[in-house]
Amino acid sequence: MSRWEPDAQGRLERAALELYLERGYDQTTVAEIAQRAGLTERTFFRHFADKREVLFRGDEMARAIVALLEDVPPSVAPLDAVGVALESWSEFFDDRRPYSKNRQAVIDANPALQERELIKLDSMATMIAAALRDRGATESAAALTAQAGVAVLKVAFQRWLDDPSNQVLAVHIRAALAELKAVTQA
Amino acid sequence: MSRWEPDAQGRLERAALELYLERGYDQTTVAEIAQRAGLTERTFFRHFADKREVLFRGDEMARAIVALLEDVPPSVAPLDAVGVALESWSEFFDDRRPYSKNRQAVIDANPALQERELIKLDSMATMIAAALRDRGATESAAALTAQAGVAVLKVAFQRWLDDPSNQVLAVHIRAALAELKAVTQA
Repeated sequence: MSRWEPDAQGRLERAALELYLERGYDQTTVAEIAQRAGLTERTFFRHFADKREVLFRGDEMARAIVALLEDVPPSVAPLDAVGVALESWSEFFDDRRPYSKNRQAVIDANPALQERELIKLDSMATMIAAALRDRGATESAAALTAQAGVAVLKVAFQRWLDDPSNQVLAVHIRAALAELKAVTQA
Repeated sequence: MSRWEPDAQGRLERAALELYLERGYDQTTVAEIAQRAGLTERTFFRHFADKREVLFRGDEMARAIVALLEDVPPSVAPLDAVGVALESWSEFFDDRRPYSKNRQAVIDANPALQERELIKLDSMATMIAAALRDRGATESAAALTAQAGVAVLKVAFQRWLDDPSNQVLAVHIRAALAELKAVTQA
């Protein structure tokens, strides 16, 4: 078998999610995920540290958001800059809405996965805060803006998952950001 | 040994923290914590589910905050009501600042404890959001306000721990809340 596998990451993600839905997360092994994807366990571990990690691209998303923040003009207020960076992920998620719904159902049913999700989001907030400090924000302004940005993402993502009219994620991010501004100014 | 132990919860908390600092969290057993506190393991498990839980009163704090929110007049804006409820915990923490610093050092050094802390804070946000919906907030306004409130608590708590002038926690909560309003209005 060739060491190079086309879209091995995506195949492993889809195989894992199928098995988690069919048998349950606890009952699924890495060997079974690799087999379902037609790949080896070694290939699995080249892409993911464990069977929790296969559902998360949180680090990838956080790194991309930080990179995007560097390109937002300094004149844009920090929270709006975070909003712009978050919105840039809309297309990625809009293209995988059914996968995302199934993925969230599996996470919501498994405390171990909920923990991992919270850690990913907290790590994302820490990375965004560091990027905002690089843009000149004070330590606490950066921390509060980053936490607020992640709160916007959480609320927007849930509304996007539940949205019967299938509006794109960017619309929900803008709405949640506007609502956060409203509740903090009330 | 009597089944009733004066301040068993506090003795177990202090004994656990001492051992975590002396030997490390991973190297400490529940049996050792109970022994150090002069209590039985059975007493430990009447107060805490496991050796992670002994460092957290998160559920107790969340329940108290929800109860306080019910007493804040409806005319107070939701985020300010959360601020008032959070401030009411200042005295509890101000009375145990050295304990809190040691506790945070242990948590920061142990991923398993960081996970538990994130879960406690997320659970607190969920409970605060439910209380805000009872006050009439919409689902997303309640979620965003609750997440923002918990972000204020996180930032304020860290600043309180690091504060060389030992100002009370309430001062840091008010400052973080004002700063959150500033960054969302910029």
